Amino acid sequence: MLKSEIIAIGSELLTPFRTDTNSLWLTQRLNSVGIEVKLKTVVGDDESRLEEAIRDALRRSDAIVSTGGLGPTEDDITRKVFARVTARQLILDYDVLGEIRNKFASRGFQMTPNNERQALVPRGATVLPNPNGTAPGLKLMQDGKLIVLLPGPPREMKPMFDDYVMPDLEKMSRGVRLSTRTLKVTGLGESALDDLIAPIYKEYSNPSTTILFTDSDLEIHLTAQAETAGRAEELVDELADKLSDKLGANLYSADGESIEEVVGQRLTLKGYTIATAESCTGGLIAERITRVPGSSQYFLGSIISYSEDIKVDLLGVNRDLIDSRGVVSGDVAEAMARNVKEKIGSTIGLSVTGVAGPGGATEGNPVGTVYIGMADDVGSSNRRMILPGDRHLIRWRASQAALDMVRRRYLL
Amino acid sequence: MLKSEIIAIGSELLTPFRTDTNSLWLTQRLNSVGIEVKLKTVVGDDESRLEEAIRDALRRSDAIVSTGGLGPTEDDITRKVFARVTARQLILDYDVLGEIRNKFASRGFQMTPNNERQALVPRGATVLPNPNGTAPGLKLMQDGKLIVLLPGPPREMKPMFDDYVMPDLEKMSRGVRLSTRTLKVTGLGESALDDLIAPIYKEYSNPSTTILFTDSDLEIHLTAQAETAGRAEELVDELADKLSDKLGANLYSADGESIEEVVGQRLTLKGYTIATAESCTGGLIAERITRVPGSSQYFLGSIISYSEDIKVDLLGVNRDLIDSRGVVSGDVAEAMARNVKEKIGSTIGLSVTGVAGPGGATEGNPVGTVYIGMADDVGSSNRRMILPGDRHLIRWRASQAALDMVRRRYLL
Repeated sequence: MLKSEIIAIGSELLTPFRTDTNSLWLTQRLNSVGIEVKLKTVVGDDESRLEEAIRDALRRSDAIVSTGGLGPTEDDITRKVFARVTARQLILDYDVLGEIRNKFASRGFQMTPNNERQALVPRGATVLPNPNGTAPGLKLMQDGKLIVLLPGPPREMKPMFDDYVMPDLEKMSRGVRLSTRTLKVTGLGESALDDLIAPIYKEYSNPSTTILFTDSDLEIHLTAQAETAGRAEELVDELADKLSDKLGANLYSADGESIEEVVGQRLTLKGYTIATAESCTGGLIAERITRVPGSSQYFLGSIISYSEDIKVDLLGVNRDLIDSRGVVSGDVAEAMARNVKEKIGSTIGLSVTGVAGPGGATEGNPVGTVYIGMADDVGSSNRRMILPGDRHLIRWRASQAALDMVRRRYLL
Repeated sequence: MLKSEIIAIGSELLTPFRTDTNSLWLTQRLNSVGIEVKLKTVVGDDESRLEEAIRDALRRSDAIVSTGGLGPTEDDITRKVFARVTARQLILDYDVLGEIRNKFASRGFQMTPNNERQALVPRGATVLPNPNGTAPGLKLMQDGKLIVLLPGPPREMKPMFDDYVMPDLEKMSRGVRLSTRTLKVTGLGESALDDLIAPIYKEYSNPSTTILFTDSDLEIHLTAQAETAGRAEELVDELADKLSDKLGANLYSADGESIEEVVGQRLTLKGYTIATAESCTGGLIAERITRVPGSSQYFLGSIISYSEDIKVDLLGVNRDLIDSRGVVSGDVAEAMARNVKEKIGSTIGLSVTGVAGPGGATEGNPVGTVYIGMADDVGSSNRRMILPGDRHLIRWRASQAALDMVRRRYLL
């Protein structure tokens, strides 16, 4: 497989406040045409270190992609240093200069002289147009290796890469195509998952299989290589199908969808509507459901009953029930679900009550204790969980478990 | 200033799914004792590239910090490669081995032989205990340079660094101390902010000033250097005070707090309570308010009225008002705020109605149109905004503007 390196340039990326995230997207694109990323470097506006990083990369890799440092200020050293390492003159390109000048003029500004810098092109390099900004990108071949210089802002970098770099990479990596698939799994621990599927995926070296944790789930990443994209996809399909059969209802997505998207699709298909009654999640479930465009088709509303009085007064939970069973209890969770369904007039009521911490723990309900309630026309049910993690993670995991309870109820 | 480099080790960090985030925390710690981070490298489980990265770093920098690759598998190459580069033998440390064995035993497991690897120590290195995992860290001096090898998981890496590495760094960087401050600003655009404060901060080269965008705000980062921590803090205080005076109510936090924390403090101090009525934000404001531990002191609940019927039936907004003014209007926003205050019995009612997109735009209300309503015992008001960005950003910015409206109302 061809090898690549990514160099992210800019002193702000060496502060505690900013990190390079462009490289994740670039890695996905490079991998898709069978090019491995072997090293990533983050370097500041520091000529000698950048020069060294470029020299090392050129020696080791078939393609080098840099992001950042193409702007108009003196700190923007990318053009200059790449030109020096590749022993090319920097030539002022009058076409590029004219375009930059026009961009300023069209916004009613006069171009300042420092912007001329952005029209400097290493001899023999191809200029990559930037419809979303002033700094053009650059592309050059050096000793059979591809060098690509991209601007840092993602909305400038991404379309430029897809339009002007991907075709070259596809040509370079002729004969190797990758296909990847992400299977998202919920309701299983890591070792239980591995026990279940290792006998299947260990039979395959292509696709390769990696299991990663996320905040609430496990993800199975499959990557297949073949000479054509179609064959790579067939290989991924074959293993993905076998794993899906084995995982059954524990698999909630095989194409990158979030659980709120999956739930939304099920509800749309069924023509059902949903409402939530939330205590410790504080609106997180409603917020996640409404992240999905078009969720107004199935999401009607919520009552966030953070205080006990609101559970009684607005949601109509019986005060005696709260006093006898406790506000964090399965009976209260079910009552919340039933009542929000009735008050809002939805097909389904979904509720959470629990202890997200750090305070609020009681004798029988340690931090992390969460009851999820669900009600529909058939009846109501609840589930108790003790979730690990800090306040943020407990709330997130509770919202995930609640959404998953809906998904599993309406699988078919 | 002393120079450092950070090397993150592990092939999973070269996939599209994972990025190195440990380095942000490490950078903050290194900076705090006056040590600059000059380069970051992400390298896979690849001996030759790691070896090269270490050699380059040793040549250029005073301190090298690596994370990852200390586990028990063959892929964990960190120990071996650092030993090779520093020309040290790897010696099996029986004390370390005993401790690892005990950790397994205490959990009722037998140590597998591959875990012996974790007890290999380069000659002359100091072993750093790991109370939160099995892999110990390592620390060594090579030609006057400090090399630190840390495990990858943040909860193992962070306490180890603070307990066993920070004291060495403080000694190394004697005579340089940094103090940093982050001022968070809302309600001002970038150029308006710069116009306002540039005349002040340009007078200072120490502290240095950097302005960064976030999703909804601007952050002003100040960094001062001095011979003592106290003097560095005085320098930061002086500029921070001048900027704060100039920024007035636009400054919402000078110590890293989020706007929901600031609002929570104001409400606690006043003894006020709050409830929200949310349409396009779908519960995000309630969710943000309840991220703060102890928010049950001032947050009572919410009515998420995503559908028009819920706005009428549950929130009691007049149907004629909706028909005549439109559901996305200032009058409806105010009615939502007044009604949620009354229904929930809070001091303050806060509401949002708008078009988060991608659908839902109308003639007078393009995507991004948001009305924020607020009501208290004095009266009610509303504010119209047209927010840029995608669905996610519009919702986030609307929640930020809503929380900011409360903050500004109860500044004093």
